[in-house]
Amino acid sequence: MCVRRCVITVGDLGEFGAVTRISGRLPQGAAVLLGPGDDAAMVSAPDGRVVVSTDLLVEGRHFRRDWSSGYDVGRKAAAQNLADIAAMGAVPTAIVVGLGMPADLPVDWLDALTDGFRDECAVVGASVAGGDTTRGDLVVLGVTALGDLGGRAPVTRSGARPGQVVAVAGRLGHAAAGLALLEAGRTGTPTEERPLGEEDRTGRPAEDRPRGRAGRAGGDDVERLLGEAVAAHRRPCPPYACGPEAARLGASAMLDVSDGLLQDLGHVAAASGVRVELDSAAFAVDAPVAAAAEALGVDPLGWVLTGGDDHALAAVFPAEVRLGPSWRVVGRVVAGQGVSVDGRETGHGGWDHFR
Amino acid sequence: MCVRRCVITVGDLGEFGAVTRISGRLPQGAAVLLGPGDDAAMVSAPDGRVVVSTDLLVEGRHFRRDWSSGYDVGRKAAAQNLADIAAMGAVPTAIVVGLGMPADLPVDWLDALTDGFRDECAVVGASVAGGDTTRGDLVVLGVTALGDLGGRAPVTRSGARPGQVVAVAGRLGHAAAGLALLEAGRTGTPTEERPLGEEDRTGRPAEDRPRGRAGRAGGDDVERLLGEAVAAHRRPCPPYACGPEAARLGASAMLDVSDGLLQDLGHVAAASGVRVELDSAAFAVDAPVAAAAEALGVDPLGWVLTGGDDHALAAVFPAEVRLGPSWRVVGRVVAGQGVSVDGRETGHGGWDHFR
Repeated sequence: MCVRRCVITVGDLGEFGAVTRISGRLPQGAAVLLGPGDDAAMVSAPDGRVVVSTDLLVEGRHFRRDWSSGYDVGRKAAAQNLADIAAMGAVPTAIVVGLGMPADLPVDWLDALTDGFRDECAVVGASVAGGDTTRGDLVVLGVTALGDLGGRAPVTRSGARPGQVVAVAGRLGHAAAGLALLEAGRTGTPTEERPLGEEDRTGRPAEDRPRGRAGRAGGDDVERLLGEAVAAHRRPCPPYACGPEAARLGASAMLDVSDGLLQDLGHVAAASGVRVELDSAAFAVDAPVAAAAEALGVDPLGWVLTGGDDHALAAVFPAEVRLGPSWRVVGRVVAGQGVSVDGRETGHGGWDHFR
Repeated sequence: MCVRRCVITVGDLGEFGAVTRISGRLPQGAAVLLGPGDDAAMVSAPDGRVVVSTDLLVEGRHFRRDWSSGYDVGRKAAAQNLADIAAMGAVPTAIVVGLGMPADLPVDWLDALTDGFRDECAVVGASVAGGDTTRGDLVVLGVTALGDLGGRAPVTRSGARPGQVVAVAGRLGHAAAGLALLEAGRTGTPTEERPLGEEDRTGRPAEDRPRGRAGRAGGDDVERLLGEAVAAHRRPCPPYACGPEAARLGASAMLDVSDGLLQDLGHVAAASGVRVELDSAAFAVDAPVAAAAEALGVDPLGWVLTGGDDHALAAVFPAEVRLGPSWRVVGRVVAGQGVSVDGRETGHGGWDHFR
């Protein structure tokens, strides 16, 4: 009997109650031919091939409930999988989610998580087509995304050739800057759920967006920029549409930047049997990254080159391709091996989960 | 420096070492157009639709490393997902696996797990097309299976109609009996990895198979039968081919028995708006289940009707359909609601993970 304060938990709902509650919050798009509620979902695959990627996220390692809201975690977990689909040049159609939860998890948190998954999928026109729930001591998310290539060849990591250019689309260093701020105790406030219409296409909440012209950042501006970096850690903003765009433009190799640009381009170099040369001056250090670097007294380029979790896209194009404004050329492919910045070798610059 | 006894662990390999090691053990079938090593895999979907199911397995809840070998866990985790695909009437094409592991996990265990996934997929001609690894305190497996319907309509839970018959294919009660034996301290020996050729089509190791005629079980026979029940808990043996067969025969509803027959048929009854009537005398109590029941002094029918984890298939067919020898008719569909056994109502007879 609840007298003073009543938090309804997942344990109160039971497994089937939880599944019913989750399913009830999930509209299904046209690509989902059979949604949640059966042994399996059925998703349209008009191309005759399906692109599939899976990720496992564990509380305490990939997110913290005191640093991110349920809504943030849902958006982030969906985003990193949807970005993998985009990085093949495909358009995401659906995700399925295996969800481990402690029995004392508040139902409000589960609702927010579900809405986060729903809203991030909605950005690309995909749906949460099914899933599985089980009990565990921590929140664990097994997310699998499906996508359709629309007849295009998949853009793998192995097609880069000497003479081609390396370009990036999306944010670099934002999430790493945000994480560093959180680790330094600059926690900000987890972003609560809000209707999708209140956000711009970057996924940033309206009140965190830059207003007017940016001059030299004053005190309020600094706090706003730091807040943007923290928000970027909580919710990546992958440039989904740039994936199929790159495939149409003839990209020879592509991946999403999840472990840090240097490490991820190292995969392209190794898979393609080439060397990638980057020019540090070609990178933008965006204002939130610069503000965080100044606040913490570090070099922002480290975050830009080695920070993970922004899920930017890095692609290699023939030199003659005219790239749209979303892409920034940051280097070139030459014969050889490895990755260099300004002519200097780089080692493993990313994040190895097991070391 | 290792002087006395050297157990190579996942932490020694590092993330990329682990991924390389896993990938190297996984042959790819014809349906996998692009295998592990990129942002996503690409799998053939000739039907133009893809069936997809996901499950999350957590150490301590779905398996115990002291009760099951890595090979057992791999086979079981793959089997329960592949069974979901079969239960739609589809043929599995590929799985992807999100794998959380502690750094001190022995590499031998990881190898055996990988081989278990590989071998269970091989039973149905599927492959492990990709995955993701991360560190965690426990072994966590997020498994997603894909399948192709070959132009058939999916067999859902909602098509059962009064006048039709209920039939089951595959084992019932074996895994529950085996779990009860393990919980009672009758642990047996986890089955080690062995080449696929040494097994029969049931997935049981050669030395556990019945030999010659079974009379009244003597002491050795009892131990052998108990061993079979424990082996059934470690490795389910779903009747995969019966799924597409049922679809071709015109099954109106189907699911795999994962939470117990009564509970799972309750889902069919609810989704179809009908009542399912079962006859207890129609069920077989297989010898391992009977032996375990005698050893523990319980009624074996409880395991048959409410035991999960065997991943038998339960389907509803028009009464006039001639079923092959894999199927056993155990009841009928009538107007009404709920599930009865011998005319008596049954409540929730299965297992709710959150209560």
